[in-house]
Amino acid sequence: DYKKDDSFSNRGMSFEDDIQESNEYYRVHEKAVIHKKPTPLQIVNVHYPHRSAAVVTEAYFQKPSTTDFNGVYKGLYIDFEAKETRNKTSFPLKNFHAHQIEHMKSVLSQQGIVFVLLHFRIHQEIYLVPGSCFIEWFDNKDQARKSIPKKEIEKNGIPVSTGYLPKIDYLAALDKWLHNQ
Amino acid sequence: DYKKDDSFSNRGMSFEDDIQESNEYYRVHEKAVIHKKPTPLQIVNVHYPHRSAAVVTEAYFQKPSTTDFNGVYKGLYIDFEAKETRNKTSFPLKNFHAHQIEHMKSVLSQQGIVFVLLHFRIHQEIYLVPGSCFIEWFDNKDQARKSIPKKEIEKNGIPVSTGYLPKIDYLAALDKWLHNQ
Ligand SMILES: [Mg+2]
Ligand SMILES: [Mg+2]
Repeated sequence: DYKKDDSFSNRGMSFEDDIQESNEYYRVHEKAVIHKKPTPLQIVNVHYPHRSAAVVTEAYFQKPSTTDFNGVYKGLYIDFEAKETRNKTSFPLKNFHAHQIEHMKSVLSQQGIVFVLLHFRIHQEIYLVPGSCFIEWFDNKDQARKSIPKKEIEKNGIPVSTGYLPKIDYLAALDKWLHNQ
Repeated sequence: DYKKDDSFSNRGMSFEDDIQESNEYYRVHEKAVIHKKPTPLQIVNVHYPHRSAAVVTEAYFQKPSTTDFNGVYKGLYIDFEAKETRNKTSFPLKNFHAHQIEHMKSVLSQQGIVFVLLHFRIHQEIYLVPGSCFIEWFDNKDQARKSIPKKEIEKNGIPVSTGYLPKIDYLAALDKWLHNQ
């Protein structure tokens, strides 16, 4: 069921880098146009040296108000968050901020497609999990579980194949999901 | 034909700020989910002071590889660039980078909706101009014009009403455009 090859492994590349390489593959092959949003920074001071490029000398990281990636695939609005965990048996919900979940709800209410790419680093397995699942898990987290068992992710998610080109073929998993809906 | 009121004017607010306020209005009223992408910065040095927030102490501005804004509206992928000029009679094409035009082409090939919100600051007029027009103008700029006469913008664009809430009602102009297609 779960397919992977040696080219997807821990070579110092981050999960997000691998996704960005896959996005680049999709873009060049005209399969989809999906980009990572830059890290939001609050810029406080900029220095303008004579004859050279402006330098930001003081800035602070801001919490992103949305998810990591968005774009367009066959006319569909695509929006997703990439998360990874070193946990072996579950995914802790504290990895999500409330505003990310709010953003996912807003996207759904506009009929966008929203999901989470979830990487179990130790197992080297990636699942595409519908955003609606995470919304439900997150909204019930005070009453119910603080983390989601891997078995539950496997039940609700679609396994994402990894390989050489693209490294993380999440559009193939998305096609399966859309086909079964 | 062209409607505006006093609340849209030069009060130190930038055109992009006014668009972001309008996006916030659309989001809260569940009309659309559209965000500005953060300015991309190449972070070179980060300082981690004891007991306080990390400070970026050296970073450089990078050229954005896409447009300013994107999101979802009634299931449609929306992508646009905001531009303004103090020119009275034309819009200089040098305001566009080649990679922005490439991005617009890619979005069109994925059946996304792409346009430019063009602000003539002196006239206080805004037009929603289909991306396909700018692609054509830009691709012919060596053979033809280096700037686009305002009359040509008026002919191809849809006037955007400005007011109190939302300040820049570009979705109303978009509806008109989509309706006439
Ligand atoms: Mg993430
Ligand atoms: Mg701009």
